[in-house]
Order: sequence, then C-alpha cells, then structure tokens
Amino acid sequence: MTRDHMTLDQFLQDLDRDIRAKGDWGEVADYIPELGRIDPAQFGMAIALADGQVLTAGQAGHRFSIQSVSKVFALACVLGRIGEQLWRRVGREPSGDRFDSILLLEQEKGRPRNPFINAGALVVTDELLTGRSPRQALAEILAFVRAAAEDDDIHIDKAVARSEARTGHRNTALVHYLRSFGNLKAPPDHVLGTYIHQCAIEMNCVQLARAGRVIAGLDCAPALLSPVKQRRINAMMMTCGQYDGSGNFAFRVGMPAKSGVGGGLLVIAPGKASIAIWSPGLDGWGNSRMGTLAAERLAEFTGWSVFG
Amino acid sequence: MTRDHMTLDQFLQDLDRDIRAKGDWGEVADYIPELGRIDPAQFGMAIALADGQVLTAGQAGHRFSIQSVSKVFALACVLGRIGEQLWRRVGREPSGDRFDSILLLEQEKGRPRNPFINAGALVVTDELLTGRSPRQALAEILAFVRAAAEDDDIHIDKAVARSEARTGHRNTALVHYLRSFGNLKAPPDHVLGTYIHQCAIEMNCVQLARAGRVIAGLDCAPALLSPVKQRRINAMMMTCGQYDGSGNFAFRVGMPAKSGVGGGLLVIAPGKASIAIWSPGLDGWGNSRMGTLAAERLAEFTGWSVFG
Amino acid sequence: MTRDHMTLDQFLQDLDRDIRAKGDWGEVADYIPELGRIDPAQFGMAIALADGQVLTAGQAGHRFSIQSVSKVFALACVLGRIGEQLWRRVGREPSGDRFDSILLLEQEKGRPRNPFINAGALVVTDELLTGRSPRQALAEILAFVRAAAEDDDIHIDKAVARSEARTGHRNTALVHYLRSFGNLKAPPDHVLGTYIHQCAIEMNCVQLARAGRVIAGLDCAPALLSPVKQRRINAMMMTCGQYDGSGNFAFRVGMPAKSGVGGGLLVIAPGKASIAIWSPGLDGWGNSRMGTLAAERLAEFTGWSVFG
Amino acid sequence: MTRDHMTLDQFLQDLDRDIRAKGDWGEVADYIPELGRIDPAQFGMAIALADGQVLTAGQAGHRFSIQSVSKVFALACVLGRIGEQLWRRVGREPSGDRFDSILLLEQEKGRPRNPFINAGALVVTDELLTGRSPRQALAEILAFVRAAAEDDDIHIDKAVARSEARTGHRNTALVHYLRSFGNLKAPPDHVLGTYIHQCAIEMNCVQLARAGRVIAGLDCAPALLSPVKQRRINAMMMTCGQYDGSGNFAFRVGMPAKSGVGGGLLVIAPGKASIAIWSPGLDGWGNSRMGTLAAERLAEFTGWSVFG
Repeated sequence: MTRDHMTLDQFLQDLDRDIRAKGDWGEVADYIPELGRIDPAQFGMAIALADGQVLTAGQAGHRFSIQSVSKVFALACVLGRIGEQLWRRVGREPSGDRFDSILLLEQEKGRPRNPFINAGALVVTDELLTGRSPRQALAEILAFVRAAAEDDDIHIDKAVARSEARTGHRNTALVHYLRSFGNLKAPPDHVLGTYIHQCAIEMNCVQLARAGRVIAGLDCAPALLSPVKQRRINAMMMTCGQYDGSGNFAFRVGMPAKSGVGGGLLVIAPGKASIAIWSPGLDGWGNSRMGTLAAERLAEFTGWSVFG
Repeated sequence: MTRDHMTLDQFLQDLDRDIRAKGDWGEVADYIPELGRIDPAQFGMAIALADGQVLTAGQAGHRFSIQSVSKVFALACVLGRIGEQLWRRVGREPSGDRFDSILLLEQEKGRPRNPFINAGALVVTDELLTGRSPRQALAEILAFVRAAAEDDDIHIDKAVARSEARTGHRNTALVHYLRSFGNLKAPPDHVLGTYIHQCAIEMNCVQLARAGRVIAGLDCAPALLSPVKQRRINAMMMTCGQYDGSGNFAFRVGMPAKSGVGGGLLVIAPGKASIAIWSPGLDGWGNSRMGTLAAERLAEFTGWSVFG
Repeated sequence: MTRDHMTLDQFLQDLDRDIRAKGDWGEVADYIPELGRIDPAQFGMAIALADGQVLTAGQAGHRFSIQSVSKVFALACVLGRIGEQLWRRVGREPSGDRFDSILLLEQEKGRPRNPFINAGALVVTDELLTGRSPRQALAEILAFVRAAAEDDDIHIDKAVARSEARTGHRNTALVHYLRSFGNLKAPPDHVLGTYIHQCAIEMNCVQLARAGRVIAGLDCAPALLSPVKQRRINAMMMTCGQYDGSGNFAFRVGMPAKSGVGGGLLVIAPGKASIAIWSPGLDGWGNSRMGTLAAERLAEFTGWSVFG
Repeated sequence: MTRDHMTLDQFLQDLDRDIRAKGDWGEVADYIPELGRIDPAQFGMAIALADGQVLTAGQAGHRFSIQSVSKVFALACVLGRIGEQLWRRVGREPSGDRFDSILLLEQEKGRPRNPFINAGALVVTDELLTGRSPRQALAEILAFVRAAAEDDDIHIDKAVARSEARTGHRNTALVHYLRSFGNLKAPPDHVLGTYIHQCAIEMNCVQLARAGRVIAGLDCAPALLSPVKQRRINAMMMTCGQYDGSGNFAFRVGMPAKSGVGGGLLVIAPGKASIAIWSPGLDGWGNSRMGTLAAERLAEFTGWSVFG
C-alpha cells in the first residue's frame, strides 16, 4: 500500500465512523416488499484504483440488490452489440421527472428520454432480447458483469425478482405503453421478466467497484468497452444517473454515477477510480442518502470532481 | 509556441476550413430582429490555454451578442455575493424542456428549474438587483467580465437590447409569472431591462475565451472565483448548459458548456482550457450548429472530455 | 303516424340524401384491424320518440360495433348497483385530453377524470366485476341493454373483440397503471377482457335508439333507471361524451351524446327522444364526422337543444 | 303572484334560512385584497321568471363584484360584433385545469381553451378593443349589461379594480404570454386594464338575474341576442362555466352557469328563468360554496335541470 493509499484508506475509515455516528439514514424503498424489510442503518464502500488495488470501509462485503445500477451494464452490453442504432429508440436527455414517470413518454410518442429511467431501460432490455431468449439475455448481462469484475461469484437473487414481479405494476404499464407506440419488439412478459431479473443481480461493494472499472476506463480493467463508449456511458451517468436529482448530484459531487433503489451507488472517477457505495436508506429522489453524502465527502477529499 | 500548441493550432485551421467547406450552417434566431439579420455562414474560435496563450481560427476577432452565455457570468457574480442562498429561489436540475418554457414553472410553483433557463436567469438577475439599480447591476456584470478577460473593451450593444425589448414578450410573461409566485423582488421592468442588456453584451471569441478562464480554473486566470464555485458552475453547465440538448452535448462533447442564441458557445476543459466558438446558425434546440460540431471535433482531437 | 312525425320523417330522408351527396366521410378507426376494414361511406339513423314510435333513415338496420357507446350502459349498470360510491374511484370532470391519454392519470394519482375516457371506463368495468366473473358481468351489461331496447337479439361480435385484444396495448397499459395506484380490484386480464367484449356489443341504429330511451327518460321506456341517475348520466354525456371534442359538440348540437370509434353516436333529447346515428368515418377527435353533422342538423330542425 | 310563484317564493325563504343555519360558508378569495376583507357569511338570491316577475331571498339587494360572471356578458358583446370569427382565436373545450393556468396555453400555442378561463377572457376583451379605446370598450360592456337588466344603476367599483391591478401578476403574465404567440392585438396594458375593470362591475342579485334573462332567452327579456347565440353561450357555460368544477356542477345541478371569485353565480334555466346567487365563501375550485348548494337545491325543487 502506497502512502497515498494509506491516507485514502484512513479517510474511508473515518467516513464510515462519521456516517454511523450521524444516524440520518433515510427510508428503504418499500414498493418491492423484499427490499422493504432491509434495515436502513447499513453502510459499505469500496474503491477500485487504477493500479488494481481495492480499498474498503464498513460492510463492503455485504451483498445487496443492485437494481437500477444494472442499467449501466445493460447499456454497455447493448452499445457493444448495436452501437449508435440504440438512439433511434431512446433519447439521451435528462427527463426532469421521476424514474417511473409515464408523462414524457406520452409527449414524446413512446421514445423514452434516456436509458436510465425505467421506460428507457426497458427498451435497452428489449434490444438485448433481439435474437435471444430471456435466459440468454440475462446470461449475457451476467457474463459482462462477471468479466468486468473478474469474479464469477455474482448471481441473481430470485426472491427479490419474484417479489418485484408481484408488485411491479407500473413497469408492466410502461412495457405495454411502449408496445402501443411500436417501441417494443420482444413479448412484453419477456422484457419485464428479463428486466426484473437483471435488476435483482446481487453484488457487494468490492464486486461492484471492480465491475465499474470498465466504465471508469482504469488501466487495470479488462478490455470490454472502447474508450468512446466508456466516455458516452459516463456522460449519460452524469446527466441522467440520479433521476431528477442528477443536477444536484453533479453539483455536489461532480462525478458520473448511477444509483439503485436497493441503496447501491456506482460512482466513476474517469481514469482514476471506480467507487461502489451501499446504504439502503433513500432520499426523496430515490437515491441512497448516505451514499450521496459519502460520494460528496470523497470528492472533496480526493479532488476527483471532473470539474477541476 | 510549443510543439503541442503548433499541432493544436494546425488542427484549428483545418477545422475552420472543413466547416466552411461543409456549408451546413443552420438558421439564425429570428425572434430578436437585430439578430435575424446576421449571415449564418460565419465561424470563429479561440482557445485560451493554461499558460496564458490564446490560439484562434476564422473570425475570432468578430464581435457578437453573447446572449445566454452571459448567464454564466451573472451566476458567477451572484454566487460570489450570496452563495448557497440562491438555491432557495432556483433549482439546479435539467428542465427537460425548452429554454423559455413556462410549463415547469407552474408545476414547481414559481421556482425555476435551473439558472440557465430564462426563468432561472431572471431570478439570478433579480438577485443581482438587491440593493442596486439596474445601472449598477449591469456595471457589476460588465466589471466581472472585463476583469475575467483582463480586457476593458467589452460593451453592451444597445441596438440589440432595444430590439429584444420590443419583442421579448415571453420573457415579460415569465417575469410577471415569477412575481405572481412571490419569486421576484425588484420591479419587473428593472429585472427585464437588466436581463436584456446583460444578454446584449458583445464580445469576440478571444475575449470570451479569456473571460472563461475563471470558469475553467486556469492557472493564468485572475482570482475571481473560489475553486468550489468554479466546479459548481461547471456542473450546472454540464447538466443544463444547452437547454434540452444538454444530454446530447455531454454525450457528443463531454465538456461543460453554455450556448447563446447569438451563436456563441463557451466550452470549458477544467484546468486545461477555455474555448469560445461563434457561428450564428442554430440547430433545433437553439444551440450553434457549427459550434457544437467544432466542440465535438476539438474534444476528439484533444481528449479533453472530462469523462476520460 | 302523426303530422309531426311525417314532417320529421321527411327531414330524415332529406338528411340521408344530403349526407350521401356530400361525400365527406372521414376516416375509419384503424387501430382495431377488424374496424379498419369497414367502408366509411355509410350512414344510418333512428329516432325513438316518447310515444314509442321509431323513425329511421338510411342503413338504420345495419349492425355495427357500439364501442365506447357501451360506456353509457356500463355506467348505468354500476350506478344502479353501487350508486354514488363510484365517484370515490373516478371523477366527473372533462379531461381536456385524448380518450386514451395517460397524462392526467399520473397527475391525479390514478383516479381517472371521468367514466367516459378509457381509464375511467376500465374502473367502471372493474367495479362491475366485484363479486362476478367476466362472463357474469358481460351478461349483466347485455341484459341491461336488451331490457332497455326490449330486444333480445343483441350480441357481442367475438371477431371484433379478438381483433382488439390483439392490438389494445394502450388499454393494457392503462389497466396496469390503474393497478399500480391501487385503483383496480379484479385481475387486470379480467378487466381488459370484459371491457373489450363490452365494447364489441353489436347493435343497429333502431336497437341503439330504443336502448337509449332509458337514458332519455322517455315515457315509453322500461323503468330501469331512476330520474336522478338518468339526469346524471346525461350530464356526464354533455360534458365528457365526445372526449376532447365535447365542448364543440355541446356548442354545435346542444344535446348530451356519446360517441364510439365504430362510428356510432347516441344522442339524447331528454324527455323527447333517443337518437342513434351510425357513420363509421371519424373526425380528428375520433367522433363520427357525419354523425356529428346529422346531430347538428337534427337539433336545428327540431329545436331539441337543451339550451333553449 | 301566482300559486306557483308563491310556492317557489316559500322555497326560497326556507332555503335562505337553511343555508344560514348550516354555517358552512367556505373562504373568501384573498388574492384580490379588496375582496379578501368581505365576510363570507352572506347569502342572497334572485330568480327572474319568464313573465317578468323577480323573486328574492336573503341579501338579494346587496351589491357585489361580479368578477368572472362578466365573461358571459363580454362574450355576448363580442359574438354580437364578430360572431364565429372569435373561434379562430379561442377554443370552446373545457380546460381540465385551474382558471388561471398557463400550462395548456403553452401546449396549444397561445390559443386559450375557452372564453371562460382567464386567458380566453383576455382574448375576448382584446377583441372588444379592436377599433375602440379601453373606455369605449368598457362603456359597451356596461351598456349591454344595463340594457339586459333594464337598469342603468350598474357601475364599476374602482376600488376593486385598483386592488386587482396591484396584485394581478398572473393575468399580466397571461397577457404578455398571449402576445408572445401573436394572439393579442391591443397593447397589453389596455387589455389588462379593460379586463380588470370589466370584472369589477358591481351588481346585486336582482340586477344580475334580470341581466341574465337575455342569456336564458326569456320571453320578457330585451332582444339583445339571437336564439343561436343565446344557445351557444349556454353550451359554453355548461361545459366550461365553473372552471375545473364544471363537470361536477353539471352533474349536481344540470343547468348552465357561470361563477365569479366574488361569490356571484349566474344560473340559467333556458326559457324558464335566470337565477343570480351570491355568497362570497368559495370552495376548492374557486366557486361559491353556498351558491352551488343553493343551485342544486333549486334544481331539485323546480325540476329545471336541462337533463329532464
């Protein structure tokens, strides 16, 4: 461990202690019953650095449901496969609206605003299903995540998937709505099933930070994404990664990131580090409350804001 | 001139030639009559580098109306004066809507989405008018821009201001609408008059690139903005700087930027360079068509995308 | 036939001839394939009078799919069963939006604006399914319509129902969206299936005019609706019966009415007559173009406008 | 007084007593300071009958600010002058939105939904100003109202007009917004000033009921409106007269009506009666709470619902 690493490691331990002392955890998402049972007072963090080292704090080894963070990896798979053609079916602008809003979808005639709101992520999943069964599409996403993390011990939590399948009526509405505009190719239940299972991928902070290395373009990362695609995914994460709290996150943290309602947060310092944070209590935008705070504190300490 | 500078300079000359050969200029804004008379087939560019040098191409010495690019400098002035209190009156989220939309203003009860849509910029101007006359507030913005550019030969084009005053009915509506929600303190005609004159500041690319050095946090820049404020303004520019084309710009270019309907574009490479581009033909979002293309080509050539 | 009846009958024959001569039929609805094959150049009309007589013109005996006209009868059934409680689940205001819009549903948290837009009609159908199977609910609606028309030869066109089931993705989205807000009690596919079959009821103008007598409160009508309920259904038809063309219809015709995309139109002259018109070519609002014209001409001739 | 009149008169006295006993008055509008000072616990009513008699109850002689009820008379003046051409500039559909909403105006590119929301009424007033000064236009409206009521003692309350002029920022926004879409011909301050003064016309229930006779088409009414125009104004009142509470009013009362934030309510029984009610406490839609209740009770008692 270098001297710099020791300083950063010390910062992480202090941050972990501060956050636990603070005790302002937020509320867990309750619309997926299986997630609603989780204790919000938890916190873990891992930083994968360019030289291959991973620093950790708190419950960095505790597995959680990555939920919408999976949208980053699904997008990476699709861009790898069809590239720019994706943008015929989905936009790349911030939505100014909730993650599951159906409003803009009507105004824009079935073309979702971006791939990180639910409607857009469903289109990405649908694209992954072209010429593949749901099982094959899920296998492809899992294979990508495992290869990125260089860790095969990453799986889908079937209980969470089942739980969401029983309650995800709004996503069901979105998928049929997309279909009514002709912006869905696979059968609706295939798209929904695949999407719900992709969201139910379970990882711990170390695994997620390691998987994020390909998005950060770290020297130590496996060669899975071209630099152009890597930059573009970061741009999407910066402008659209935290739903209608994206502007606020860019303002406070200054790094591309993607949150999930399971409390996970993947933050990217391009070329420098891939950071995974987990704390299941959410703020009013549906983003991890302590995760956002930890990211902000990390940016202040390291100067990793992309804005100088 | 260093070897690197020579290479960059060569790139700029090639770019200028390519853009003129292309001839795909877009349309000039016609809602301000004085701007509607300008020939769209024009292009200029200037890059202010960290070491103080400025490289130029095309009509870099031609003065134009900076229009909405002025919102960046007005925001800088206000943040310098009242800091975080501004955010009680204006948000910092992308709007997902046109620059002069009144829709979200109604939904969000008079708190504009961000300081770069017109409604938000009017609130920033109103804040500048606290304890000041319109003349004094304009003098403050002009003083800031001149100090940033280290150039006192920067003025307001009164003919453009008069032209917009006669036709800016939508801004008049916005200002009264803000007032109806109690989010305006100065008299409506003071706010409007100050805003219209601030937009009518005239600069050439060299001046604008030099003024932008404080936003880029360049070593050679005058010390007018704290690093925290500088980063935050960049974050706003990244997520909200190109109206509802901001996501697309982040995707294609990967640098914070602010456009104006006069065809001006200020692009920031934090710590590296401040770039001013001018080409008055606009795209469908109201951003300079050739300006955006030039920024994209520059990012490809230099690798200045903040996303790695 | 009285002298008045003879005059009215002569008017009907003239109207039929005029409309056929005009030849401005509009377009048939094509989102239900089975309806898209129908020739728009058709016209039929029937007027059931208070004394029990029925006057006819054109293809008054031709059966057509009543589609959304069925919403009137479903509402009558539900009001008969649960009365005012229905209004906890659905509003009674015009929507200012298309018949299948999902926009206002999001803004109003899953409570449809009124029972005559699709979302509201789905809630009415859901209410009919309380304690009943789809088969039983459909039997109840059919029984009501047959009793109202005093004609048992009224049936569901299964081919139309099947056709809509294959293409009604937006209704599928609506039903799941209602469920996501907790405003659906029966299984979504039961509600959808029942709704689609209810819309596929097939009637001719004579049958529809006779069924409408209970809505018009004619002396000759079977006693199926209390006067209060009859008046309230008429009020809904006046303000919401023609989607976002309701204000225009009230303005031009001045009588409560309900249209269907099959080209059917039920118009009520309270206490005086029940009028059924059929012409499958639609205008831009989705209402029968010649049906609206015929209603306007009839109102002018008879002075049956409720507005004096 | 006939036997029928005696019965109706007795009903009115009972109704007055019931409403005062009930004591559920609602809140007065406070956005116009001058109106905010009025005691909500007041009630008056007058019914002008076809034979020329006027029955009264409570404070039927107390003068109040008619506010939006004036939109009916302004519309009558304009239809008398330019007829159907008005509909090029304003629609005739319910808005599904608040009386002063700016939302739909943006969506529909500056063409207000109907003449009874503020934006639409401002267009009507603008039309009245064609070829006339504000003073002349106001004189025309006043002359119409006085002729309709056959009473010259009807005036504008200047204090109310001044009070609204100081606080009506949203109407100022609307007028400039209309202008930005090119849907305003007169100078904005002329339109606003005329509109505010027109709203400040002061009448008592007897005067208003008598003025409404021309809208009701009563035998005793002066010949100021053709039957076609009279019917059309009634249609507008039925579908749009109570803002986004119009559907509910049609449902409960079944008569065309127009409300004002001063607590006035003009209700029309076409051919039978013109009813004026005043009670300044408002419900959540901005309509007179006790006024609506009184109208409902009257409709039940008389059977004057147009729906049978």
